[in-house]
Amino acid sequence: MTKPNMQHDLLYGKIKLFAGTASPELSNEIADYLGLTLCGRDVLQYPNENLFVRLHNSVRGQDCYVIQSTTAPVHENLMELLIMIQTLKLDSAGRITAVVPYLCYGRSDKKDQPRVPITARLVADMIQVAGADRYMTFDLHAGQIQGFFSIPGDVLRGFHILKSYLLEIAPNLHNPVVVTADLGFAKKGRVYAQLLHTGLAFIEKMRTSDINNPVSMTVIGDVKDRDVILVDDEVNTGGSMVHAVEILKQHHARDIYMVFIHPVLSQDGPQRLAELPVKQYITTNTIPISPEKRAFFGDRLVVLSISNLLAEVILRANRGRSVGAMFNE
Amino acid sequence: MTKPNMQHDLLYGKIKLFAGTASPELSNEIADYLGLTLCGRDVLQYPNENLFVRLHNSVRGQDCYVIQSTTAPVHENLMELLIMIQTLKLDSAGRITAVVPYLCYGRSDKKDQPRVPITARLVADMIQVAGADRYMTFDLHAGQIQGFFSIPGDVLRGFHILKSYLLEIAPNLHNPVVVTADLGFAKKGRVYAQLLHTGLAFIEKMRTSDINNPVSMTVIGDVKDRDVILVDDEVNTGGSMVHAVEILKQHHARDIYMVFIHPVLSQDGPQRLAELPVKQYITTNTIPISPEKRAFFGDRLVVLSISNLLAEVILRANRGRSVGAMFNE
Amino acid sequence: MTKPNMQHDLLYGKIKLFAGTASPELSNEIADYLGLTLCGRDVLQYPNENLFVRLHNSVRGQDCYVIQSTTAPVHENLMELLIMIQTLKLDSAGRITAVVPYLCYGRSDKKDQPRVPITARLVADMIQVAGADRYMTFDLHAGQIQGFFSIPGDVLRGFHILKSYLLEIAPNLHNPVVVTADLGFAKKGRVYAQLLHTGLAFIEKMRTSDINNPVSMTVIGDVKDRDVILVDDEVNTGGSMVHAVEILKQHHARDIYMVFIHPVLSQDGPQRLAELPVKQYITTNTIPISPEKRAFFGDRLVVLSISNLLAEVILRANRGRSVGAMFNE
Amino acid sequence: MTKPNMQHDLLYGKIKLFAGTASPELSNEIADYLGLTLCGRDVLQYPNENLFVRLHNSVRGQDCYVIQSTTAPVHENLMELLIMIQTLKLDSAGRITAVVPYLCYGRSDKKDQPRVPITARLVADMIQVAGADRYMTFDLHAGQIQGFFSIPGDVLRGFHILKSYLLEIAPNLHNPVVVTADLGFAKKGRVYAQLLHTGLAFIEKMRTSDINNPVSMTVIGDVKDRDVILVDDEVNTGGSMVHAVEILKQHHARDIYMVFIHPVLSQDGPQRLAELPVKQYITTNTIPISPEKRAFFGDRLVVLSISNLLAEVILRANRGRSVGAMFNE
Amino acid sequence: MTKPNMQHDLLYGKIKLFAGTASPELSNEIADYLGLTLCGRDVLQYPNENLFVRLHNSVRGQDCYVIQSTTAPVHENLMELLIMIQTLKLDSAGRITAVVPYLCYGRSDKKDQPRVPITARLVADMIQVAGADRYMTFDLHAGQIQGFFSIPGDVLRGFHILKSYLLEIAPNLHNPVVVTADLGFAKKGRVYAQLLHTGLAFIEKMRTSDINNPVSMTVIGDVKDRDVILVDDEVNTGGSMVHAVEILKQHHARDIYMVFIHPVLSQDGPQRLAELPVKQYITTNTIPISPEKRAFFGDRLVVLSISNLLAEVILRANRGRSVGAMFNE
Amino acid sequence: MTKPNMQHDLLYGKIKLFAGTASPELSNEIADYLGLTLCGRDVLQYPNENLFVRLHNSVRGQDCYVIQSTTAPVHENLMELLIMIQTLKLDSAGRITAVVPYLCYGRSDKKDQPRVPITARLVADMIQVAGADRYMTFDLHAGQIQGFFSIPGDVLRGFHILKSYLLEIAPNLHNPVVVTADLGFAKKGRVYAQLLHTGLAFIEKMRTSDINNPVSMTVIGDVKDRDVILVDDEVNTGGSMVHAVEILKQHHARDIYMVFIHPVLSQDGPQRLAELPVKQYITTNTIPISPEKRAFFGDRLVVLSISNLLAEVILRANRGRSVGAMFNE
Repeated sequence: MTKPNMQHDLLYGKIKLFAGTASPELSNEIADYLGLTLCGRDVLQYPNENLFVRLHNSVRGQDCYVIQSTTAPVHENLMELLIMIQTLKLDSAGRITAVVPYLCYGRSDKKDQPRVPITARLVADMIQVAGADRYMTFDLHAGQIQGFFSIPGDVLRGFHILKSYLLEIAPNLHNPVVVTADLGFAKKGRVYAQLLHTGLAFIEKMRTSDINNPVSMTVIGDVKDRDVILVDDEVNTGGSMVHAVEILKQHHARDIYMVFIHPVLSQDGPQRLAELPVKQYITTNTIPISPEKRAFFGDRLVVLSISNLLAEVILRANRGRSVGAMFNE
Repeated sequence: MTKPNMQHDLLYGKIKLFAGTASPELSNEIADYLGLTLCGRDVLQYPNENLFVRLHNSVRGQDCYVIQSTTAPVHENLMELLIMIQTLKLDSAGRITAVVPYLCYGRSDKKDQPRVPITARLVADMIQVAGADRYMTFDLHAGQIQGFFSIPGDVLRGFHILKSYLLEIAPNLHNPVVVTADLGFAKKGRVYAQLLHTGLAFIEKMRTSDINNPVSMTVIGDVKDRDVILVDDEVNTGGSMVHAVEILKQHHARDIYMVFIHPVLSQDGPQRLAELPVKQYITTNTIPISPEKRAFFGDRLVVLSISNLLAEVILRANRGRSVGAMFNE
Repeated sequence: MTKPNMQHDLLYGKIKLFAGTASPELSNEIADYLGLTLCGRDVLQYPNENLFVRLHNSVRGQDCYVIQSTTAPVHENLMELLIMIQTLKLDSAGRITAVVPYLCYGRSDKKDQPRVPITARLVADMIQVAGADRYMTFDLHAGQIQGFFSIPGDVLRGFHILKSYLLEIAPNLHNPVVVTADLGFAKKGRVYAQLLHTGLAFIEKMRTSDINNPVSMTVIGDVKDRDVILVDDEVNTGGSMVHAVEILKQHHARDIYMVFIHPVLSQDGPQRLAELPVKQYITTNTIPISPEKRAFFGDRLVVLSISNLLAEVILRANRGRSVGAMFNE
Repeated sequence: MTKPNMQHDLLYGKIKLFAGTASPELSNEIADYLGLTLCGRDVLQYPNENLFVRLHNSVRGQDCYVIQSTTAPVHENLMELLIMIQTLKLDSAGRITAVVPYLCYGRSDKKDQPRVPITARLVADMIQVAGADRYMTFDLHAGQIQGFFSIPGDVLRGFHILKSYLLEIAPNLHNPVVVTADLGFAKKGRVYAQLLHTGLAFIEKMRTSDINNPVSMTVIGDVKDRDVILVDDEVNTGGSMVHAVEILKQHHARDIYMVFIHPVLSQDGPQRLAELPVKQYITTNTIPISPEKRAFFGDRLVVLSISNLLAEVILRANRGRSVGAMFNE
Repeated sequence: MTKPNMQHDLLYGKIKLFAGTASPELSNEIADYLGLTLCGRDVLQYPNENLFVRLHNSVRGQDCYVIQSTTAPVHENLMELLIMIQTLKLDSAGRITAVVPYLCYGRSDKKDQPRVPITARLVADMIQVAGADRYMTFDLHAGQIQGFFSIPGDVLRGFHILKSYLLEIAPNLHNPVVVTADLGFAKKGRVYAQLLHTGLAFIEKMRTSDINNPVSMTVIGDVKDRDVILVDDEVNTGGSMVHAVEILKQHHARDIYMVFIHPVLSQDGPQRLAELPVKQYITTNTIPISPEKRAFFGDRLVVLSISNLLAEVILRANRGRSVGAMFNE
Repeated sequence: MTKPNMQHDLLYGKIKLFAGTASPELSNEIADYLGLTLCGRDVLQYPNENLFVRLHNSVRGQDCYVIQSTTAPVHENLMELLIMIQTLKLDSAGRITAVVPYLCYGRSDKKDQPRVPITARLVADMIQVAGADRYMTFDLHAGQIQGFFSIPGDVLRGFHILKSYLLEIAPNLHNPVVVTADLGFAKKGRVYAQLLHTGLAFIEKMRTSDINNPVSMTVIGDVKDRDVILVDDEVNTGGSMVHAVEILKQHHARDIYMVFIHPVLSQDGPQRLAELPVKQYITTNTIPISPEKRAFFGDRLVVLSISNLLAEVILRANRGRSVGAMFNE
């Protein structure tokens, strides 16, 4: 990290980092990178479940960042994020950025049938009405969700975290092919294929009206005798992945590497996934993975940290420097 | 109920009632009063905790009411309410009313210290940004919360539900006095005193920085040898009430009737309260009370239903008739 | 068309149809279906290019629909749409619906690189700030664009127009396969495959930084000796389609049927497309196709009309009846 | 006052103080404290009563404060405040703070009967729509009014001005008791009781439908042979106070000290109040008290100045330093 | 008045007329025309000048009109208008129209020098933020002020009231010429000249920095030996008119008829104007003229009533019928 | 230009100039004056006419200016301006100023007949919804258009550009008189008359319903044997000017100097104007005049540049210094 340029430091006041209760480790890592201390705040829950927030020090005119992944318990964490944002606004913060490595409700992003919500838009509206001036997140389920906000944001890609690791293991892969478990992820899969100078195949599945039972049906493309990089944006209970791995094996795929950005891993997902004939599970810490969950996977689980990237983006946002330039864009 | 006037029926389309998952019985009672069937809707929770709503039938141009108390689990219920509102909006409902008998976060209604939120305002903003055109509720913690909304609302008073019961038992009371357990409720206590043509006294307590330990200190006013109507807007874990009853007894009060609108009754509240030397607990069903909780109180618990009043207010809202006139106001 | 129910007719005033200059035929067909006359309006262009609109009759309190596809000249047509909306608003229309069969800028729907716009969101904002209360359109480039609007809308699918025709020709197809020319359309391609009870394949191409030169590279899936239903949402200059057909033929596909919703057909597109070895071009009239363009294709061009569907949706919007029910949804 | 830190000085541009015509002395005192000169502006009233404002110098990018109490003539002063705010906005001020020591319409803060306004919310909306970014005020009638604003504000308490004076006279008080003239002020009264380590009592009065005739009825609590600190937030015509003093004397109170933040003192209030058997009237200058009014009270009137506190808060707002820290909060 | 069409009557609920305190007679005349009774409301002013409004009956879903000219006392009347609008909104009125025959601050409609307000925009914003859905007014100082509102409005022209009277007296005029006292009114003067099939001339004056001293300098155009129709939109203290008449007489004009829409007539305006050698003063009742003011003019004052026109426009707004059609437009 | 004060330089980040495609030369001149380089950006137009913008470098926190005149092709240029603004907003620009020397649709600024738009308000709304924080422009058709914006702006007057040239030629003018070709410009004409210490006359014309045929009828005021300064805000096809010159010559005017701010000069305007007996055409470069257009006029065309003034205003806006002070205002 280069020494801060004092002139630019004044654009937006000082960086003030606030950790939500959902992302304590990540928040600490970010603070460490920036050489800062997390700002003191109390977060209490009353017996009636209502949350209460109190900041230890004034943030008048300062450049504030609330770090909170909206993972389980999803709605408490979301509300805590919103309350912290409003508290900062009412204390006359200079600028407030919601740093939400995993943004909930991303899969409710369109009306693919009548009379259903677009909850991702509702979440965007809530973050804005609470008072956020900007947001930062990783890998929205659909890039278009960025258009649900009328405030600017930095939508980072876990791909930038994962790619050096993938390049490292690439020489050991046997005629690899990138496979997506969902057609909706097909275009994003191409980015991995380009990185590894290899081809693409798809698991074609049907998402039925029964929400827990997506039946994968076939593989489109060639996977026989090839190592497979099976990619998706998030893995939840692992249902799709179980079907995907099964079918890949039926089509004589060799080693399978499961790659995903957001380790939601809810319910019995960790156990089901760990039982699969998968060589490695490669993911990030946009969502914290508890030691209990990690135990299922043993050393087959590789978790790459987003903290340095996120810290650097926060620094650049504060100094008015390009984020795109970090990725040669 | 008078026969609907067909001419007015057209002001706002037909009444469409939607029950949130937090208020099933109340919703059914309202539907019964109105001679309607609750509209079909699915509310699902995915393994990642995200909620999903789907309406069975179109609500284009209709006058929709979502009935949902924001009780435990508070944040799921609040989010479900918001999602239902947005779903109705996206399906082109004619008008959407959030019917929230108990509105959460009412006690976070002002900044009585620096660097804290006004979460009740945030909740009002969320309800509005989701798409509600109006709201209905009972007994806001402070009447001023109505000013947090920029949409109109009907804020009903449980007093109108309780008063006939109180008048019924009044002849049996011995020189009664109305006591409030919180100075902030002092002015509302006066309404009960006027109803019963009697006086007022107050429990004066100090709410310390330790949020669970409000120490009541004394009684201001005369309670000796008098039956006490101990009133408050909501009762939660009962901490304040335990102290209030203790002190009232120290000051030689006779029978104590505990009267409150919102039976939050969280944690071990039902047990603690039921153990008190209280003759009757008189409340309403703005929040459902489970059979398990009811069991603690036995027949000392009197729950008066808000459903007919709420149904009549919905009818009047739809027909464009006065609600105030119901109370001779 | 069933006889209008007079009671519901009053929900939103009378239907008033306004034709923008971009969609005259479609507007007439809609008016015919509804048994109405298009409302008189002048649209003038001054020598300084500024547009001017004047309505012949008052629309106070009426339910107004402005029918205007945002095709070439795109920006004049968009501005004309906005001005008509504002004019209706200033004349106190009861409700204003922007009926835009083809909504421009759909492909600018996300930031897939830094420092670029999300113009589809800007267009949504413009339609709303002009005063529209609702919108209707066909096949947004991404379903998520619906989340760019905070007003409700009816996003119809050309698939419902095309499917009966496809079922009609299906018996004559030889072992058909549905192929998408763009991975982003993969999931929508599945709907066609389900209709025809057949499989899916994909053209995998790379969109390079040179915007006019997308190089298709290979076919993923099996097309050999099969009739191909080549589907996409819109066809513009036909560049992608030329590459797609070429590769399909290299992979020994049999007859090719090109199916697309929006016939943009700009520049020399009609000529280039007509020269391809394609058996039929099946599309709709969301965008008018001039006789000159039609001439290139001869009777290989099948244009299915959206007018009856759109008219029925307008009627149902006005009457407060379900649109989803038209599709058994 | 410590020397300004130049680095922080740049957060919000330079402090620019504008005096409204209602608060000339206070404005001068604030300017003196800050070592600044009030910015030149013309405020004219045309023969048709319309006001006109003209700033003498540009305020582009500067941190502007308009000091204006909304006292009599209330509506001219309110409009002047709004016009000054808009003028600053149109001149591209960097930030605009409405400094309104006394905010009018505070008592219209809730709908305690049907079909009445919440004018305090309207006033908040007006200040915001005019263009204010922040506000500062003293002792809102209800703390919840802060939630009527969606902009942040500093709501200061006159208690911090009065407390050192009260502590100074405390040793001379005989077994003092704090009495509130209005039950709505009961909780605020407790703060005074805590300061003086003494008890509380209340005047219980009924506000009847006749707005000028609140009939005080009794004293709740013990005042006999005690010196009374009679506290309220504002005193207007003094009607309530006349009744309160009368009843206190009937209950054999000793010396009475009348303490209030906002000296509205309208109509014949000064005369009526001055005739009461009150030892001291202790208030602040949130509202200027004319020499004519002061004459009624003689040296029994103690007016403590808010100017230094307000000036310090302005300085801290500009420098991004904590205001809460001034009160050890 | 034709019998109301019951079908259209339902578009917006029933007409509910509310009279502000500034326009009692006009309100009664409108109610008479419509065969309605003014809705009961209390308007009180507390000793602290704060206004209070209470509606006697519910207006839920009804089509409400608040009739209030913003004349002296301007700011009380403006605030009363705003409070009535908010009260109606909070009582869930179906639609609220501000009927403001004379809208204050029209002359503060642009920044013709730096650092001044555009108060007419502020007033428009205030009316909207209070909750008005529409507005009605007469002769804005500049037509562009209509663009300051984002809600629709009916801006009526007093010309339509005056023209039949002018045509009646026209045969008796000697070679008449229309003269405007202000160049800004030049284009509007032309409408009068066209009506009377005659020419135009202008008083050319300089508005100096001294706001009360506009020095008229000369007449541009021919007035010698001609009867003069001297037109303006409003007359206040009459300063411009005194100069205009003086110069017209110097240029040997014959009889002078002074024609203006808004009789502001503040301060000593009535006396100064009545002393002028003017044959008739022809105006309307957009602003009430007190008997005292009328006495100065005797029978030289002709006041034409806007009430029937305004009532008919209200009726048409409620029924969804054209207003423009009333003027063959 | 004085050396920038580094302290003030930090108020709004660094100046970043972006040239729209409509104003390349002007943009370069502004950049030269400020010693800056225009920021790199791509503006592409796809075959479907949709525009695309990409910024070469990050603008986070910087003070951005988009320079774009909304001239022909008007709607492409307007849309390009809006897209550039949104792109800057999404890239987290610190402040965005739309620099639009000529703002289109200025003549659609009021409803002078029923059922027409106020398109200038729509354009203002569009600029704001795209994300502009401020705007700069020259000579709005009506000063009131500034009130259509709720963001602040600098509306500069071409008069300040033209006046020194006019004073230079003044000694050679023979008894000059200022004539306006449109009564709506009468008050602005006075400013020129004051500059030259001379009188005013007016061309009185009727704008008929046929939009291209304004029939000038007469001259009001004295032009015989006088040199004429014929002034207007913009000249388009020159229709009004042809009539004006014709009538002036009929009334025996001597030399005619045509003075106008905005050289729209559309269609055959240049040719028609150049054929008139006019001594000089004096205008500015708010709109670029192509060499082809210039050729018609030869050296009778005098184009005075706004670039230095605009550059200085941008500098002052960035530094927080007065613009009004440049004109001794």
